Amino acid sequence: MGEAAARHDDGRQPEADAPGTDMAAFLGLEATADPALWRLPVTEDICGGRGALYGGCGLAAVVETAERASGRPLTWAACQFVEGATTPDVIEVHFEVLTAGRRVTQGRVTGRVGGRVVLAALVALGTREFPARGQWGPVPPSLPPPHACTTRRMNEQRRGGLRLRIDERAASGDPDGVVRASDGRSFLWASLPDGVPASASALAVLGDAVSTGVAATFEDDLRARSIDNSIRVVRPQACEAVLLDVQVDGAADGLAHGTVRVWTPDGQLLAVTSQSGLVGPR
Amino acid sequence: MGEAAARHDDGRQPEADAPGTDMAAFLGLEATADPALWRLPVTEDICGGRGALYGGCGLAAVVETAERASGRPLTWAACQFVEGATTPDVIEVHFEVLTAGRRVTQGRVTGRVGGRVVLAALVALGTREFPARGQWGPVPPSLPPPHACTTRRMNEQRRGGLRLRIDERAASGDPDGVVRASDGRSFLWASLPDGVPASASALAVLGDAVSTGVAATFEDDLRARSIDNSIRVVRPQACEAVLLDVQVDGAADGLAHGTVRVWTPDGQLLAVTSQSGLVGPR
Repeated sequence: MGEAAARHDDGRQPEADAPGTDMAAFLGLEATADPALWRLPVTEDICGGRGALYGGCGLAAVVETAERASGRPLTWAACQFVEGATTPDVIEVHFEVLTAGRRVTQGRVTGRVGGRVVLAALVALGTREFPARGQWGPVPPSLPPPHACTTRRMNEQRRGGLRLRIDERAASGDPDGVVRASDGRSFLWASLPDGVPASASALAVLGDAVSTGVAATFEDDLRARSIDNSIRVVRPQACEAVLLDVQVDGAADGLAHGTVRVWTPDGQLLAVTSQSGLVGPR
Repeated sequence: MGEAAARHDDGRQPEADAPGTDMAAFLGLEATADPALWRLPVTEDICGGRGALYGGCGLAAVVETAERASGRPLTWAACQFVEGATTPDVIEVHFEVLTAGRRVTQGRVTGRVGGRVVLAALVALGTREFPARGQWGPVPPSLPPPHACTTRRMNEQRRGGLRLRIDERAASGDPDGVVRASDGRSFLWASLPDGVPASASALAVLGDAVSTGVAATFEDDLRARSIDNSIRVVRPQACEAVLLDVQVDGAADGLAHGTVRVWTPDGQLLAVTSQSGLVGPR
């Protein structure tokens, strides 16, 4: 480990005054009198296009709500998108504890507009000091750094307000910024306005890249609807930008599934996100 | 695609009289008067050791309940294990529709013992005819077939009743059947008594292999407690055995995360399962 000295026995803690973008402010997530209930106004700033909530922002709101309500850092979340939330909906995001032990809290987070469920999520939070640590499996190839990569090129009408707030660079692709995949694998650099904080919710926003990978893999302008966004957090770390290592795993019967390994520029694995989506002709 | 001829417009259907093990019977899942409510008596037959429900059997019960209640094939499920269910608990497994469209049903499945939640799951079901199809990413190396591999060797006291009913062979490991990993990746063949049916629930049972991969990676007798079992279904297929291609992705702060690609013997990707677990000294 070589870094245990300054760490609390419970392992990592949610970051309070950490460097990088303040994620609750970034999302526009608002506290209420009930610490387990937060409000997420769906503004253009968190939409991915056509006034629809960006999936990664939905997952991030789940993460922030669960971390702030429980006081523990998130380690796993799966968020299902049930009904599209669109501007100007206001989502009531509610955290419910299913079990809370000495180290770990498990719960559900539900997002409702009026009484209608738009997000349904499962979450686990809490870590502990234990020396078994490491990262394994495919590492990214040598790639040019973010500043040497072209800004990702997207169809403008699908860009949405969120896309204007995150810096995305095509690390595998054409010189004009179109992301390309080889054997279903594609790479992007992504960052937030004030850098990437050591926060699971930041990784949730940036790690929502499976649909990008699907488009790069099929080289076709497919319509995709996310079923879920899921995240497994290894250890968040503040950094200038993250490398999204996107692997589309398989597609059949109108669905595509993919996995994203989220890396620091110096090759630390921060998280693994994954997603299933419905694909169809646009 | 080259196989569309005999298929219904909705894509694959849940299998009724398919070859291979009947999964509801295998699990001992019992119908009730309410089609959305099933009963799962926790018997030694579905336990992984020390009288505790095997995670893959919990996920499989969720899958079977959702498929039977909705009449649609499962494509994604994430199942959180909240409290340990042990013999002789009887779990009431309840499917709740959150939204049901022309093609896709999304819902929640909750397992309770008495009033206590022991399983909390999210599910999506339903497919459609669409030509975009494929599989991408790392393929398994050339490995000996199941019959040429040694039966997996486990510590007997942790074997449990379920382990006696599934045939597991170490495809990467020592000649005595101990599974070994290289760069966090290990391989097992796994099968059910009457072969593997074309069923998501069979893949849920067999695909619960991350803890095996963690033990193989750390080469240590660690205690592991599953937080969740999740599955993304590409397309189930009946086969003699499945190859479990287990990749431990990362571990830190008392948690380990891993991914399993589930393959047919001839290299078709059936599903991707994943899991997070708490690890600690035994």
